[in-house]
Order: sequence, then C-alpha cells, then structure tokens
Amino acid sequence: MTQFEIRFQPDGRRINVEQGISVLEAINLTGIDLVSLCGGKGICGKCKIIIEKGEIKESLTEKEKEFLTKDQIDENYRLACRIRVFNNLIIRIPEASRTGKQKLQIEGIKAPVKVEPLIKKLFIQLKKPSLDEPKSDIDRLNDYILKKFGISKLKFNFNALKSLGTVIREDNYKFTVCIWNNSEIITIEPGDTTEKIFGYSVDIGTTKLAGYLIDLINGEVLAAGGLMNPQIRFGEDVISRIAYKDPQQMHDVVIEGLNELLIDLTNRVSIDLENIYEMTAVGNTCMHHLFLNLDAKQLGYSPYVPVIRNGLSVKNNKIGMNINRFGKIYTLPVVAGFVGADTIGVILASEIYKRDELCMALDIGTNTEVVLGNKERILACACASGPAFEGAHIKFGMRAANGAIEKIKINPETLEPTYYTIDNAKPRGICGSAIVDIPAEMLKTKIIDLRGKINKNLESDRIRQGDNGYEYVLVWGRDSFSKRDITICQKDIGEIILAKAAMHTGTEILMQKFGVKGDDIDNLFIAGAFGTHIDIENARMIGIYPEISLDKVKRIGNAAGTGSRMCLVSKTMRKLAEEISKRIEYIELAVQPNFQNVFLNSHYLPYADLARYPITIEFLKKIGNYSEKKIRIFKNDFES
Amino acid sequence: MTQFEIRFQPDGRRINVEQGISVLEAINLTGIDLVSLCGGKGICGKCKIIIEKGEIKESLTEKEKEFLTKDQIDENYRLACRIRVFNNLIIRIPEASRTGKQKLQIEGIKAPVKVEPLIKKLFIQLKKPSLDEPKSDIDRLNDYILKKFGISKLKFNFNALKSLGTVIREDNYKFTVCIWNNSEIITIEPGDTTEKIFGYSVDIGTTKLAGYLIDLINGEVLAAGGLMNPQIRFGEDVISRIAYKDPQQMHDVVIEGLNELLIDLTNRVSIDLENIYEMTAVGNTCMHHLFLNLDAKQLGYSPYVPVIRNGLSVKNNKIGMNINRFGKIYTLPVVAGFVGADTIGVILASEIYKRDELCMALDIGTNTEVVLGNKERILACACASGPAFEGAHIKFGMRAANGAIEKIKINPETLEPTYYTIDNAKPRGICGSAIVDIPAEMLKTKIIDLRGKINKNLESDRIRQGDNGYEYVLVWGRDSFSKRDITICQKDIGEIILAKAAMHTGTEILMQKFGVKGDDIDNLFIAGAFGTHIDIENARMIGIYPEISLDKVKRIGNAAGTGSRMCLVSKTMRKLAEEISKRIEYIELAVQPNFQNVFLNSHYLPYADLARYPITIEFLKKIGNYSEKKIRIFKNDFES
Repeated sequence: MTQFEIRFQPDGRRINVEQGISVLEAINLTGIDLVSLCGGKGICGKCKIIIEKGEIKESLTEKEKEFLTKDQIDENYRLACRIRVFNNLIIRIPEASRTGKQKLQIEGIKAPVKVEPLIKKLFIQLKKPSLDEPKSDIDRLNDYILKKFGISKLKFNFNALKSLGTVIREDNYKFTVCIWNNSEIITIEPGDTTEKIFGYSVDIGTTKLAGYLIDLINGEVLAAGGLMNPQIRFGEDVISRIAYKDPQQMHDVVIEGLNELLIDLTNRVSIDLENIYEMTAVGNTCMHHLFLNLDAKQLGYSPYVPVIRNGLSVKNNKIGMNINRFGKIYTLPVVAGFVGADTIGVILASEIYKRDELCMALDIGTNTEVVLGNKERILACACASGPAFEGAHIKFGMRAANGAIEKIKINPETLEPTYYTIDNAKPRGICGSAIVDIPAEMLKTKIIDLRGKINKNLESDRIRQGDNGYEYVLVWGRDSFSKRDITICQKDIGEIILAKAAMHTGTEILMQKFGVKGDDIDNLFIAGAFGTHIDIENARMIGIYPEISLDKVKRIGNAAGTGSRMCLVSKTMRKLAEEISKRIEYIELAVQPNFQNVFLNSHYLPYADLARYPITIEFLKKIGNYSEKKIRIFKNDFES
Repeated sequence: MTQFEIRFQPDGRRINVEQGISVLEAINLTGIDLVSLCGGKGICGKCKIIIEKGEIKESLTEKEKEFLTKDQIDENYRLACRIRVFNNLIIRIPEASRTGKQKLQIEGIKAPVKVEPLIKKLFIQLKKPSLDEPKSDIDRLNDYILKKFGISKLKFNFNALKSLGTVIREDNYKFTVCIWNNSEIITIEPGDTTEKIFGYSVDIGTTKLAGYLIDLINGEVLAAGGLMNPQIRFGEDVISRIAYKDPQQMHDVVIEGLNELLIDLTNRVSIDLENIYEMTAVGNTCMHHLFLNLDAKQLGYSPYVPVIRNGLSVKNNKIGMNINRFGKIYTLPVVAGFVGADTIGVILASEIYKRDELCMALDIGTNTEVVLGNKERILACACASGPAFEGAHIKFGMRAANGAIEKIKINPETLEPTYYTIDNAKPRGICGSAIVDIPAEMLKTKIIDLRGKINKNLESDRIRQGDNGYEYVLVWGRDSFSKRDITICQKDIGEIILAKAAMHTGTEILMQKFGVKGDDIDNLFIAGAFGTHIDIENARMIGIYPEISLDKVKRIGNAAGTGSRMCLVSKTMRKLAEEISKRIEYIELAVQPNFQNVFLNSHYLPYADLARYPITIEFLKKIGNYSEKKIRIFKNDFES
C-alpha cells in the first residue's frame, strides 16, 4: 500500500499513513486534539484545518462551503473529515479547532461515609514449618488468619498463589497479605507493608476525566485532578464513540488517559503505583461499557440496552490500569442505556435514597439525567439535551476554556451587555453557563419573546439582520480575540430552547409520574461543572427546572465523582449502590403517551402552561411583557 | 556472544547455541529424547552420546571413565552433561541413550460414578428487548435462566461478558451458555451447541502422561492415550525437576506435552478443542505444582511443604491448555509434599474411603505411596523407593520399552532362565516387572540368600565374578540386542532390596500406626503400570507388601487416572476428594521413632522378623533353605 507523509504545524509532528485514509483519521492517529463533534460525519463543521502544502483531490464539498467562511476558503481551510490523503501533505491545525485545556469540575459534595474499604492488609508472622507439622503454606496461612483475625474461607488470587512459596520465605515467614472483601487474597508482599494501602477513584465523563487518590486507611483524598477524556478526538458525543469502527482503540485511549492522570496524581504525593489495590469508576453507560471493553454498539440504537446493569468487580489484569496488577476494579451499577453509573454516584452523594423530603437532581450535559424521589421511591430518566450547553451547535459556542464568556448581563435600558471571561482573557466565544444567560437576559430585556423570537423593532445597533435572520451582537470585533463580532443569532436561541425543552420534558414527565408539582420539591440538586457555574435564577427563568424557591437549589459539584469515592472507601456504599440501581424506576420518555405534547409545549420560555410559573408571571408583569391573551394561546397549545 | 552449530545424527536436526553451554543443555533445547536420570549432575551415566565431528575441550572426566566402556571411549562416546560447546559439532545420539516409545498404563479400574459434571450447557431463546422493557442483557438472561432452569445468582466470566452484546444478537437472541458449577457463565456461543460438551482428564506422572477425552453428557471415554512426560529430558526424578534452574520451562513443557496428547485424542474422534470446557488433573505433588506453575522449590527440602493442599479450580487462561480458553481446570487436592493428588485419585477409584473392610493401596514408583484404611480412618505415607523398579541404578535396567525383559523364571535344577521381552524383540535390558522377579527367582533357586547375597558356590557358568563382585548372566551376548551379556550383579540386587525395603518400611509403619497386621488386610490394591505387570507372588515373596493371601491382591491399573476422570464427571466426587484430603492422616516416616529399625530390618527378604511370614517359611522349608538358627539371627537383628 502506498504511504504518504503528513507534517503537522505548529506541532512539528510527522506521520506516515496509507493512501486514501481521511485526513481526520490521520490526525486522530497522532493524538493531536482536533475537535470533531460528529466523529467525521461532516455535520458539525468543527474539524477545520489548513492545507499548507500538497494537493487535495476532492474539490470543496457543499458541507465545506456551508461551514467555511470565504476568507477561510481563500486561506486553504478544509474540513479534515471531508478530504483524503493522496500526497505528502503539510497541515496546520488552527488553535480554534483544538479542544484545548479546559476548566474541569473535580470538587464535589462531601457526604460523610464511614471508612470501611473492601481492601485491607494483614501482617503475618508464620511459624517455620517442620516435619512434625508439614502443613501446606496455604493451610498454615489460613489457620493463622482465622485464629488472629477471625477471617475464614479466603480464596487466593491464582497469580498471588503462584509466588506464595517464594514470597513467604523471603523475609523469614514475615509478610503482608492484601485481602479483598474478606474473601480473597489478591497479593502478598514480603515484610510489613500494612501502611501502604491506597485506592484510585474516577469519574469518566464523555468530555472529562476526574480522578482521586485515596488513602484507604483513613479515607482521605491525597490528590485530585482532571484531564480531558482523550476519546474526544474521535467525536464529542457518546454516539460518535459507540459508532467508532475500532472499539478496542476507544477502550485503550480512555485507559491511557486514566493512567496518565493516575501517574500525575501519584507523582504529586510520591506514592508507588503497586500500592494502589483498588479502583472505582463511574461514568455514563457508554463510558462505563467502553472502560470495561464491553460491547457498546447496541447502546447506539433503540431500545439502548446495556450489557450489564449490576456493579462489577473485575481484576485489573483484565483492564490494564497501572495500579497493582492483581488489584481490583469496581464499576458502579448503571440504570439503563442513558442513565449510567454516574447517576448512581449522584444519588449516593446527594443521599436522595434516604431522605424523607422530595428531591430532584439534575446532571446536565449532552445527555441530562433527571432523578426525582426520596427514601420511598426514586424515578430517573434521561433527556437528549444535546451539546448546546457545551457550546456545540451555537455559532460562537465553545467549552469552558480560556477566553470563554462565562457570564452575561444585559442592561434592560441600553441593551448593552456586561460579560465575564475565563482567565479575564479576550473573549473567544461563549461557554455553557453564559449560554443559559442568553435567553434569560434577552427575555428580561424583551429582546426575545416567550417563544424566543428576536424583536427586530428594538432601538439598538446590537440587534441586526445577520446571515441567518436577526442576531444580537454580544462583543464587537474590536474587543474580541478573533477580531470578529461575537453574536447570538435566532438559530442559537432555537438550539438553546431545544436543549432546555428536552430537560424540561424530563422533569415534567417525572413529576407527573410521581404525582407531584414543582412546589412539592424540597431540594433541587444540580450536579456537574455546568451546575457549579450557572446563574440559578436565569436557569429557572428559562425552564431548565421547575419553578421553585431558589433556596431549595443546591449545587453539588462533581457528585458522580463523590459517589465513586464513597464506593471506594465503603463496602456499605457499594451495597447501597446495588440496591439503588435495582430500586430506581427508569422512565423511558420516548414511550410516554404525553411525551410529544409536553416536549412541544416545553419550547416556550419557560413553558406553555404559564399558570404554574407564578414567579415568571410576576416578573413579566413587572417588565410589562405579560398578557392574559398570551397565556390563553399557550394553554390552547398545551391542551391540543 | 559467539554461537556454534550442532548437528544431530541420525535425526538430522541442527541447532545454534551459545558458546560454553553443556551439550546436554543443547540437546534439551532440541527436544531430542536423550535419557538423563540425574538431570545433568554427572551421576547417572545415562546421557551417552558420540562426538562424530568437532573438538571437545574437556578431557575425559573420572565420571566418564567410570560409566563408559573401553570400546565406547575408543568410539568417541562422552557423557553429554560433562562436556561443553566450544566448536561446531556433529553428535550422534545412540538408540540406547534414548527414552524411546514406552508402554504406558492408561486403563484403570472402573468405579461407578453418577454423571453430574460441573459443566453444563443451556440453550437460551430470549425475547427481543424493547423500549418498554429495556433491561440489560445480563438481567434478561438471568431472569430467563431463573425462570426456565431454576438457577440464580450466576456470575459471569468477564471475558464472556465482553462479547455478550454481540454474541446474543448474532443468531437473533438464540444462543447457548456454558455454566460451571451452577455459579458462573464461562462462555456463550451463538445458536444451539448443547450437544457439544466435552472434558479432558489427565494423570501427570513423573514419567508418563495419561489422558482421557470424556463426553460430559454421558460420561463416556471417547478416546484415551498416553505420552512420555516431556520433562523427562530434564531429569527422571522429581528432585531433578524441582531443582531445575528454569521452573517456567518445566511448566511449559508439561503443558506442551498435555496439549500434544489432547490434540492427538481430539483428532482421533474429530472433536473441536473449543468444545472442551473442563479439565481435571492428578499427579504427585511436584507434578501438580509444576503443572499449575506454583513454586515447587520448597518441595525439594525438608519439611517438603506444598503451597496448597486443597483442590483448585483455575481458569484455563492462567494455564494455557488448548481447551476452550474460558474453560476451567481442576486439580485434585494433595495430601503432603510426597503424597499427591494421584493418591487421592487412587483412594477415590479404589473406594477405600467408603469400605467397611480394611484396605491397603500401593502406588509404586520412584516414590511409592502407601494408603491403609477404611471408611473410618485412612493413613498414608510416602516411601522414597527410588527408581530401581523403573530400571535406573540397575546395570541393565531400562524402562518398559521395546526389547525390555518383562518376566523372568529360573529353573531350580539347571539355574537356566526363561524370559519374555516386550514385543518379543531381542533383549536390550530388564524392566520393572522383571526386576521384581530377580530376587524372588534367585531366592527360590538359592542363587541368593535371605540377605540377597549371591551364592558363588553354585555349579553354573551363569554365576561368575564380574567387575563388581559376583553376577548372574541372564542373557548371553549372542542372544542380546547389543551383543553384550545382560547380567544381574550383586549391586543390582542391593538396589532392588533397598527399594523394596523403603516400601516395606512404609507398609510396616502404617500397619503399626493403625494397630493391624498383614492378616487383617482384606484388600490390597496395586495401582500403576508396575502393579499391572508384576508377578504378585514374587512381589510378596521379596516383601514389597505384607504376606497376605494372593486372592486379596487386586491390580487396579491407572487408578490415579480413574480418580481424575471421576472428578471430571462428578461434582460429588470432587467434594469427596476434598473431604478425603482433609481426613487422611499423613504419616511422616522419617520422624517415626522406629523408622531406622524397621528400615534396617526390611533389608532382608522379605523381612528380618520371619515369624510373621509363614508362607515364606513354608516355602523355604520346601526348598530346604530354612533353619531355626537363621530366624534367631534375624530376630536378634530385629530386636537390636
């Protein structure tokens, strides 16, 4: 097969690839962090690269014409997924096309947990065997452990068994056994190593990985950190990951990422990887399956069936983490194809499962999980909210990285905006927390109506006719990083409303199923990075969650990660996790008879049936943007 | 490192080896079946080879002068373990130095066992999942199995789990699960494969491997066969194997041998290796440890402690047999360092554990295991009988291969022998069953006395002065394969008496411990190839076992192999095996206060205390070779 060389600028990397593969595939081979939201289907338009040298066979496709500006076309921009390699090439990856370093949510709620890890170490001092008592090594060891520690019927990890004869004799019959779940000896070490016993707990997000290094003696977090999920270069959403042609590679890269994070954390506190004996992991069902290297294909099509629901303990040698090779890995149970182990983590961390009062929890992302319940009953559903709040499908959307606008206020008199960027850098785009502000601030200032339609009649040069209908200029080119105006167009608002409509449908249907209204909810937990940064009033105003008193809204940070940590240090928590996953009633929204109706009515801000939103009515009255007629219209929609 | 080439004749094989390694090591690398009883220590003198071309640095060692005849020295014979490679060489391996094809004992006693294997297959037809019932694959499978087959709480082999999503969809939700011990799904296969379910059962002897291919539906033996244990080229006794520098290689070659045998058996009956889901193995404790790749070193020195006593079920991927890669391997429990899983097999097959009557079982080999007991109590010990009965340490000893003399009669009048050889070939040497005949026939014909001393005063040209004292010419050179006289010398008789003394000491001490005499024994089981072929009267006459009525002596063939098969097809038998290994009282002969005394007195034929051997007395009287005085002398010895 003919091979060609591609050089990448400014990275200076080179790669030889086979003739005919797509440039996107070639870039993915290098590990360069090119954004590709759709995974190479040519529909997201994010994988823009510049051909500096070398000929491309394919002439400009219709898709490329759609996503590339005239200037970009002149500068030899192409979409990497649309073109193939038939020559040696020199390619430049523009900064704007990179996933870049991101703010990651690592901290989560702290739920008090008794430290009772499954892993424990026992120091053993055996009597030397003699001809009078020539018992087998294992029999002598078991007798000793029973007598001294009261533990019986221990199984032996076969790999530990293989070296037993040598190891116990190495330090004159003094050694340490590492026991899992009071049932299995997973490894033995010469001498006394009982002080060295650590665990690693992770939250595998579609976008980010969060990791925690834990001392299993006292449960303390020794180090915590985050990293982009390196799978991201194969596509940003779970569907791209599931559909990727090589699932083994998808598994391998996430393991690589988790190992990279692990090594970083252990280096920070000088801990030996061999002394990490257990790991726990949460993630959505797709991440969970890819991490375990289970078949994930069927998660991509209806009825989205996971291979396994239960929590799973596997030996590390099946997975390949850099913890002790005889260590154990526990994945929390999942609930359904789109309600994963991360949701179980959120329920553990928020303690919904044991509360008297009614709680709702939202874990907002491309896929948003909604949980509603208390100690009696728990319902959960998944909403296909899409990646709008992560910046995708929004013209100037970006993720929470340097230069991202993360907060917006609009002056109702002047319609002039105030905004804040990450690192106070020159604005490059708009990230999730500010994306929530957009419709809320525009609604408050009457720039849009309850349907999200831009009012073209307002007196402001910031409201103008754009390429795709009317738009609002948030940042003038003179102030922006790229020197281009950063705008919010009618289509952007539509995308945001679509995303919030999906979530609203989930919360609404769960409440109907439970037989409660927004008023009945005593706690509303918002998990995840998004929840940590949003303006909760604006979020309520646009209908991301039911209209409840703001003092009931609690941000719980990376609660999925907290749940993972709880299960690392506590046997009881694992049992609870298993029970919860069985108890939860999973509600499949798509098969609910009123799904279409609720979804359509959710396209209003905050909802067609305004009667249940007295705070909004009050506000609309205040700004003189309310009429009974409007409500009637919406009611008709609602009842239709 | 400089390399040299060695060519082997008549095999025509070539090998490149590093300068300085011993020729024995080089030969072992090729797999040529050179005999090396001592494993390269230079003390057995069996690894004779001929240097056809190339220079040897080392001049003839004292050991070589001892073991090589003058003719051999003239013909460039050397001991392969005494010389090293410093040139290209051409080496001839004489036929006499090869282990060759051997008669192997495969058939054993048939004990009736109910077929209830741990492995079973279930055919599954799942309903297609739907959005109304999007249960995980495993939950649906478990529900089905519980409802249809009443089995719950199944664990999943993780490797099977990994492909579950794909496999169950391959034939439209029709598939077959293979379950182990009603507790674990080890593999799943598309479609209905319930008819294809087989097992492999082996007996790993120090010298030979025996294998049985079993249909797990009805327990029938589909094919059986044997093979030399390929470890034999590293030394014939267990101590050489334990001491070998590379235990991994020792493990690897026995696995290779067992796989070679397996493939031969499956080819004979056209069975797919993938459809063999379980294997059981017996062997002495050393073979057991090497098979499992456990540390075996400590078995080589006092107090001879095994790593594990219990039976062990491991996954095949830990061992590397060519059965289904997710299959299981069960090794029967052992009793002590020198009473192994093979002895448990013998007890299962002979059903000693459930008999009212008192039974003794002997499994004769380099190490002889003695079992004495009934359903109330079982004692066992190991006797270091040495390899005399396998032909080692006997001048013309050889194993049971082509041309081996396997039966000897001596005419009391003429002192002329009659003998029978394997395959009726020209005699090459004497194998085990005939080695038992030697002292018995010589005693009956007064060629030796009760101490084994050759009577030099007899009138026969067959009795003559040899290199090492007197000898008896069994075959004249004109009739033998090598054209040399085959003789039995005083030293040979000493070796045989030493071997039988070890066994006799074991039987005697066990009887003392049990508080019984030979008369009390109702059944005497002789296991193994040796037991199948010996003359039981001659064996009794020389004191291999207590003097009991011959109708109580039962040959049970490869009973260890039978026990292995029983455990393959029966869960109950495995439980029994575990119970027996705990019940058995292991008697360490070396720590018994009367050990030395019994051992010394066992150097007589059959024993110093003749009073307990009335049949022998009767016989000695008949041939006029008995006097009260002799008894008294022995008694004095006995009491001293």
